[in-house]
Amino acid sequence: MSGIVNPGEKRLVLISGRAYPELANEVAAELGTEVLNTESRTFANGEIYARFGESVRGADAFVIQSHTSPINEWIMEQLIMVDALKRASAKRITVVAPCFPYARQDKKGRGREPISARLVSDLFKTAGADRIMSVDLHASQIQGFFDGPVDHLFAMPVLMKYFQQKFGDVDNLTVVSPDMGRVRVADRWADQLGSPLAIIHKRRDPKVANEVTVHDIVGSVKGRTCLMVDDLIDTGGTIKKAAEALKAQGAERVVVAATHAVFSGPATERLQCEAIDEVVVTDTLPIPEESRFPTLTVLPIAPLLARAIHEVFQDGSVTSMFDGAA
Amino acid sequence: MSGIVNPGEKRLVLISGRAYPELANEVAAELGTEVLNTESRTFANGEIYARFGESVRGADAFVIQSHTSPINEWIMEQLIMVDALKRASAKRITVVAPCFPYARQDKKGRGREPISARLVSDLFKTAGADRIMSVDLHASQIQGFFDGPVDHLFAMPVLMKYFQQKFGDVDNLTVVSPDMGRVRVADRWADQLGSPLAIIHKRRDPKVANEVTVHDIVGSVKGRTCLMVDDLIDTGGTIKKAAEALKAQGAERVVVAATHAVFSGPATERLQCEAIDEVVVTDTLPIPEESRFPTLTVLPIAPLLARAIHEVFQDGSVTSMFDGAA
Amino acid sequence: MSGIVNPGEKRLVLISGRAYPELANEVAAELGTEVLNTESRTFANGEIYARFGESVRGADAFVIQSHTSPINEWIMEQLIMVDALKRASAKRITVVAPCFPYARQDKKGRGREPISARLVSDLFKTAGADRIMSVDLHASQIQGFFDGPVDHLFAMPVLMKYFQQKFGDVDNLTVVSPDMGRVRVADRWADQLGSPLAIIHKRRDPKVANEVTVHDIVGSVKGRTCLMVDDLIDTGGTIKKAAEALKAQGAERVVVAATHAVFSGPATERLQCEAIDEVVVTDTLPIPEESRFPTLTVLPIAPLLARAIHEVFQDGSVTSMFDGAA
Amino acid sequence: MSGIVNPGEKRLVLISGRAYPELANEVAAELGTEVLNTESRTFANGEIYARFGESVRGADAFVIQSHTSPINEWIMEQLIMVDALKRASAKRITVVAPCFPYARQDKKGRGREPISARLVSDLFKTAGADRIMSVDLHASQIQGFFDGPVDHLFAMPVLMKYFQQKFGDVDNLTVVSPDMGRVRVADRWADQLGSPLAIIHKRRDPKVANEVTVHDIVGSVKGRTCLMVDDLIDTGGTIKKAAEALKAQGAERVVVAATHAVFSGPATERLQCEAIDEVVVTDTLPIPEESRFPTLTVLPIAPLLARAIHEVFQDGSVTSMFDGAA
Amino acid sequence: MSGIVNPGEKRLVLISGRAYPELANEVAAELGTEVLNTESRTFANGEIYARFGESVRGADAFVIQSHTSPINEWIMEQLIMVDALKRASAKRITVVAPCFPYARQDKKGRGREPISARLVSDLFKTAGADRIMSVDLHASQIQGFFDGPVDHLFAMPVLMKYFQQKFGDVDNLTVVSPDMGRVRVADRWADQLGSPLAIIHKRRDPKVANEVTVHDIVGSVKGRTCLMVDDLIDTGGTIKKAAEALKAQGAERVVVAATHAVFSGPATERLQCEAIDEVVVTDTLPIPEESRFPTLTVLPIAPLLARAIHEVFQDGSVTSMFDGAA
Amino acid sequence: MSGIVNPGEKRLVLISGRAYPELANEVAAELGTEVLNTESRTFANGEIYARFGESVRGADAFVIQSHTSPINEWIMEQLIMVDALKRASAKRITVVAPCFPYARQDKKGRGREPISARLVSDLFKTAGADRIMSVDLHASQIQGFFDGPVDHLFAMPVLMKYFQQKFGDVDNLTVVSPDMGRVRVADRWADQLGSPLAIIHKRRDPKVANEVTVHDIVGSVKGRTCLMVDDLIDTGGTIKKAAEALKAQGAERVVVAATHAVFSGPATERLQCEAIDEVVVTDTLPIPEESRFPTLTVLPIAPLLARAIHEVFQDGSVTSMFDGAA
Repeated sequence: MSGIVNPGEKRLVLISGRAYPELANEVAAELGTEVLNTESRTFANGEIYARFGESVRGADAFVIQSHTSPINEWIMEQLIMVDALKRASAKRITVVAPCFPYARQDKKGRGREPISARLVSDLFKTAGADRIMSVDLHASQIQGFFDGPVDHLFAMPVLMKYFQQKFGDVDNLTVVSPDMGRVRVADRWADQLGSPLAIIHKRRDPKVANEVTVHDIVGSVKGRTCLMVDDLIDTGGTIKKAAEALKAQGAERVVVAATHAVFSGPATERLQCEAIDEVVVTDTLPIPEESRFPTLTVLPIAPLLARAIHEVFQDGSVTSMFDGAA
Repeated sequence: MSGIVNPGEKRLVLISGRAYPELANEVAAELGTEVLNTESRTFANGEIYARFGESVRGADAFVIQSHTSPINEWIMEQLIMVDALKRASAKRITVVAPCFPYARQDKKGRGREPISARLVSDLFKTAGADRIMSVDLHASQIQGFFDGPVDHLFAMPVLMKYFQQKFGDVDNLTVVSPDMGRVRVADRWADQLGSPLAIIHKRRDPKVANEVTVHDIVGSVKGRTCLMVDDLIDTGGTIKKAAEALKAQGAERVVVAATHAVFSGPATERLQCEAIDEVVVTDTLPIPEESRFPTLTVLPIAPLLARAIHEVFQDGSVTSMFDGAA
Repeated sequence: MSGIVNPGEKRLVLISGRAYPELANEVAAELGTEVLNTESRTFANGEIYARFGESVRGADAFVIQSHTSPINEWIMEQLIMVDALKRASAKRITVVAPCFPYARQDKKGRGREPISARLVSDLFKTAGADRIMSVDLHASQIQGFFDGPVDHLFAMPVLMKYFQQKFGDVDNLTVVSPDMGRVRVADRWADQLGSPLAIIHKRRDPKVANEVTVHDIVGSVKGRTCLMVDDLIDTGGTIKKAAEALKAQGAERVVVAATHAVFSGPATERLQCEAIDEVVVTDTLPIPEESRFPTLTVLPIAPLLARAIHEVFQDGSVTSMFDGAA
Repeated sequence: MSGIVNPGEKRLVLISGRAYPELANEVAAELGTEVLNTESRTFANGEIYARFGESVRGADAFVIQSHTSPINEWIMEQLIMVDALKRASAKRITVVAPCFPYARQDKKGRGREPISARLVSDLFKTAGADRIMSVDLHASQIQGFFDGPVDHLFAMPVLMKYFQQKFGDVDNLTVVSPDMGRVRVADRWADQLGSPLAIIHKRRDPKVANEVTVHDIVGSVKGRTCLMVDDLIDTGGTIKKAAEALKAQGAERVVVAATHAVFSGPATERLQCEAIDEVVVTDTLPIPEESRFPTLTVLPIAPLLARAIHEVFQDGSVTSMFDGAA
Repeated sequence: MSGIVNPGEKRLVLISGRAYPELANEVAAELGTEVLNTESRTFANGEIYARFGESVRGADAFVIQSHTSPINEWIMEQLIMVDALKRASAKRITVVAPCFPYARQDKKGRGREPISARLVSDLFKTAGADRIMSVDLHASQIQGFFDGPVDHLFAMPVLMKYFQQKFGDVDNLTVVSPDMGRVRVADRWADQLGSPLAIIHKRRDPKVANEVTVHDIVGSVKGRTCLMVDDLIDTGGTIKKAAEALKAQGAERVVVAATHAVFSGPATERLQCEAIDEVVVTDTLPIPEESRFPTLTVLPIAPLLARAIHEVFQDGSVTSMFDGAA
Repeated sequence: MSGIVNPGEKRLVLISGRAYPELANEVAAELGTEVLNTESRTFANGEIYARFGESVRGADAFVIQSHTSPINEWIMEQLIMVDALKRASAKRITVVAPCFPYARQDKKGRGREPISARLVSDLFKTAGADRIMSVDLHASQIQGFFDGPVDHLFAMPVLMKYFQQKFGDVDNLTVVSPDMGRVRVADRWADQLGSPLAIIHKRRDPKVANEVTVHDIVGSVKGRTCLMVDDLIDTGGTIKKAAEALKAQGAERVVVAATHAVFSGPATERLQCEAIDEVVVTDTLPIPEESRFPTLTVLPIAPLLARAIHEVFQDGSVTSMFDGAA
């Protein structure tokens, strides 16, 4: 047989965008390696440039970006990095997007709208991404937007562990869904914790025209510790009102748990309202000092990402990290 | 300028699969035309064959198929028809799938599952479909699975019109969601009818291990006419149990409304139970005589499809058929 | 150099559809492994579901399906399995279709027909198949329908070995082509066996209008053992008439050899007619007990498939299995 | 409604490669128009350049090229023209390839071969072709190689008309297939003419090792006018030997009919042998003066192409040109 | 013939991004229509949303965006609009990008860099763009990055007309290229104006290590009016130094002409230096009040875009707008 | 874990077209292996055929072709070889095109032209190429035409080494650009050699209408050794005239260096003119004996290609071969 035969090797490299480099560094540390040295710049007219400091030929590359504001900048940076990896002969490229951008634009609610979550999936594919890794997609269907493997991770074990340590075998815990749209997530929590479930239902006040002011609460919350769960907190409006409704109904304590801390606009202020006793989130998005407050607990997401990346690289099982559910 | 110049023309043609030819005929009648003559056959070994009886060159073709059981046969027949249209130089091909096949397999609920709704969308695209038209997708995100325009129609106006005529200004109407997953649909109905909302919540009975037996009802149903709404009725199990729970709580009357009458297995029997006073569906799927029963009302979906096809062909607006919501 | 470097590995996994699981089990046994545990189900409305019981990450997966009736079900099941493999990060996916579905619809015989064999090839590609493996394609051109490697195996060595053992150095063997369309296959057999060739030519009886009733035989068959070869036997009509014509011309014995035993409709009955002394086929398709008869010999195709899969996995040579002809 | 609305128009333009410009001119004349002025050049290093002399924006463009030797030049020229049309905003591009290039490389006869007919189909697609028009493809399956509509024309009516005028109601006509591979074509001719069929079968001479020297003739040819039909004549070797065998068996006259006059190498000389009384072909390929000889009749293919182009442009029916067979 | 036949129509619609809506309004005014009403928003977390106020079904849509800073925002907005158009059944979508984004990243200058201009072309294609229209691409090769028609317009006639009116038949005009990279543009100007050409050549000062300080001037500039031309002015550094070198060599007057006024960072200040007598640009990019200065002349690009859009919509000729050069 | 696990291996194979087999043999020798045995043929009608003599399954294949005249033949041969490799299950296919074909048709200089360099890139992709390797692309932007990695090598180190050995520390060396379009290349050489730069500027003679006759020389050349550099020499016209202009201005000696020796038409004769003292090229293209002349030096490009192929195969760094510039 002609030609030259060599043993095969595989090499994992971690690439980081500039949105939240600390996250990639933590992932690298968990894996016992370092983020690959990359030169990234934004020119005066806003154009982004990136170049890798060493060869990525044949590498199994994971490009970590945290899609915080200015979100379009970070999408473009990641696309540009993926393009550079493709042209530099990386063997496989995984886009790591802990909080998937545009996830809430996942359907046409009305005619003549875009479906931006699908668009973004296609953009990643076009740039050269072979795979996507994300945490707690706003809708699970987004997995189907990408034409290739999506590793859909859940932050629930990370958050759950915290609460189990904190509450121990608290009797009076009730899991609360802040609105009708998130009931399924709350249901899973209630199941896991063996706690009852309560749901907050916004409805129009028949006495006031055209306004949603009444927050009905389904389930018993009086005198109980309420654990309100959601996938993300954006401006905090819904959460705050729900917490106030819970307290008004006699809840003893209100704790909020969410994966993605978008925290835009008045979120920080709202989350510090009297009705909310504690807020627990992960750092899939960076949380700057000015957005932090005394009752906020931030759990690191890096260990989860690192373990999933390790399984992907080693052809292990991500599914087994979540008892078959991923 | 060299060459030959002619005025442009456009021609609409309707093609029908064999699953439910009556539906296509009704659509054609609404549009004032006929279904294009097509020779369709299944060979002894199960392979399907189709051939059009006249030229479809340059045509704006709508291929109507109703994805009832045996569902895979009808998917393949439609794919084969789309392929034949493409190869016969049709200008634009729209797959009309009133009840989108595999719509419930729209995500990976667990690891190593397919996302068959995306797969089916891609199969249609590969065969040559330019567009898709469907009614009440199980999840709106499925629109994003297809790489092209999706006309997402709503049967709600059809069903609503029936109820408005029937109930007039009934005071004691309550809209009910049969489980947590369909709350949003029920909410829209409640809004439109100006009626209160009730929700049925299945939960584990703390007294019986590992079983979901308790059906909590959120909202007041005593003495009221309950209109339970869902997108589809498959085996009817959920619906029946929900109706029984409503009656147990004192509901005066239970009426069920759904778009898609899958009616598989024991559905017909279950839907005739005492607790259910009436079932109203559309015929996006054919409902054979043996599945019909005295308390069933079937509303024709053809007028809605015909109007949408007309708008698509004429470059009109489908969105305006639904007050901006499609 | 940053990153983590590991030695590469490759892993073969066998997946089986439900059409003919025994075939996959035999292939696995030949290879010294087992078929990967898979949960496959058909729901009440006909939709198919599949999920793999263990990780397939990075695997070189071979998905074996036998495209027997109901053929569209088995195509869809295989497509769904390929989709699930793609989304579960399999490295390479080979569709093993021993009897390629829709192979006889390989061209437009008339205007406005589909080319379903091309369509099916594209569907496999779309679902995520990287390669196809098949046995004795109805037309070799079908290899060109798939955009990627096709391992085209020949059952001839399997069948030939049987006949060489059976007939030894029989002098009076004549290879017969049952009609004009299969002459090339018969020619190859005649060459290999060093036997003369005879051809059966159907033509219109000039005395009877519009009917093909006369079976001319080209070549000498009187007093000879006729080995009639074809790629597949569907309803058995052509074969039976050909055998009768041979016997009418004084053939001593008629043996039929074919790769694919489609055996639809009246095939079993026809093949047991007096004119046919023996029928020899392989089991690329399952042959249920009720289709078997005393003069039928079924040769296992699994050893051939297993060897080819081994060569593909090991980067060996499939071509060398057939003296350069594959 | 905002925007500007105008009536639609469509414009047919004919583009010609340099292989056989006379053909395109004849087609244009048939259609009552002219070939679009195009500047085509071959640079000193062999690179080809093409530019259109007027706007082709929005045009329905037909690019006619005759794939004669040097065949690769003409393929590249046509690809370049298609690319230029695509970039110049032509609306629809049809590649007219009367004699499809590389049609005989339509399968892998042995391992590690290309399938060049599929490759060429893909190259046309990549360059920007929407459709293909060709005459008498070597194998009908080639239609399935192109991902889009293929107008497959038949020269048989053109040739047939000539023979019907020539032979009138000749009694003693026999249609002959020159080898086993072309039997199907001959069969169609025999059917149409109501004549008997004869077949020539090459086989190894048992007295001479490893050589195919014997030409068996199936059917009666003695004293008859033999019409030998084939899709193409390349070097003329097979045809000449077949004609000699016919004459040796007592054929009174041998006439050869073929669509494509490849006429390479010694073809002209061979076709003028004593055994062949007349050769009738069409000019899908140019036939230079030096390849013409007294017993050669060349029928123009332009009227057939023109009519098909007219039907395609007008959204008429090409199928109806051939009684449903295209 | 079955079906419904109607005369064809075509409808042009103009869509505008939010980067520079005045430009789209001017184009619309030139065309005698209005920009289609569009709702565009940026959410608190930076995500962009767009929805069209009326139907765009079947429309020939032109999406005008001016890629000024923040450039990635405007790219994403345009991609989202294209996606919405595609999903709303627009017939043809043209991206109008007067100053093509990332045009200067058109090659890998060093290893492991992206080619962002190609990436952006692919992103537009993926979102659904059929065509691109742009003015004075930084490198003409960028036309080849897009897989489809690119209408490459030249601002030269716009600028030229201004100068011809201004300078009349000035004798002492010299066209100057500010560096080696732009010589070809300057050459075209010199040709058109019949003026001599001068070139500025930066080279290392042999007396100073590692620094490019010397600006050699090729050609005579003493006592002459120097017209320095470039495709874009970014920070203005090169231009200012070149102007100073010209004045140092005795130039009487220095006028700068450029198509794209990027004007980032210190540009405005630099361009007001003594050495520069006038700056003439077009408004392919918006020039805010604070970037304008007394010696700046801004010529409107809208008439050029409008005329090109008109030609594209009407299947006219854009090439003829530029004497064959586009 | 089920399945079979084996260690991974990788195998490099070299394939050669027939344009310049010596080059591939030299590359193989440098790498210590042999070119894979391939059967290549051109049939009488010009069609090309290729088949590999041994298995290429799983191989990392490099297909070397030198795009000399007849250039379209060699492109087609390479495409056919790539197709055969793809269908024979090669793992990765790199097209090695030392002198990229159609590189000068890299943009639309005028309307309605093709962009053939992009077309050729797409053709390679379509046939199955994963990567491209080339030397000194006419425009660097061509890298962006291919949708995948392009290894862009520079011959400058090869040529530079020769001159450094030849000239040693010659004081009086001046690097000359033969026209405005190649200044950047010359600039790089001047930089590297620490020599001054001169530029030749063709301009219209004001005394003679419509003719470019004057060759201005920018920079001092009197009494100096002029090293004129270009990427390719085609007909040699520009080079000859430039050399004569240099000599006319008192240059002592004129040496020409170029990567690609296209040498078409009168090139050989022109390059032997008195004004040119030496011509140095590489053999990216074959230079037949009749095109060689006493003052021509041909440097082998094989070592450079071999080293790059080695780096690509071994996942090393090609960039580091050129100090970061590739």
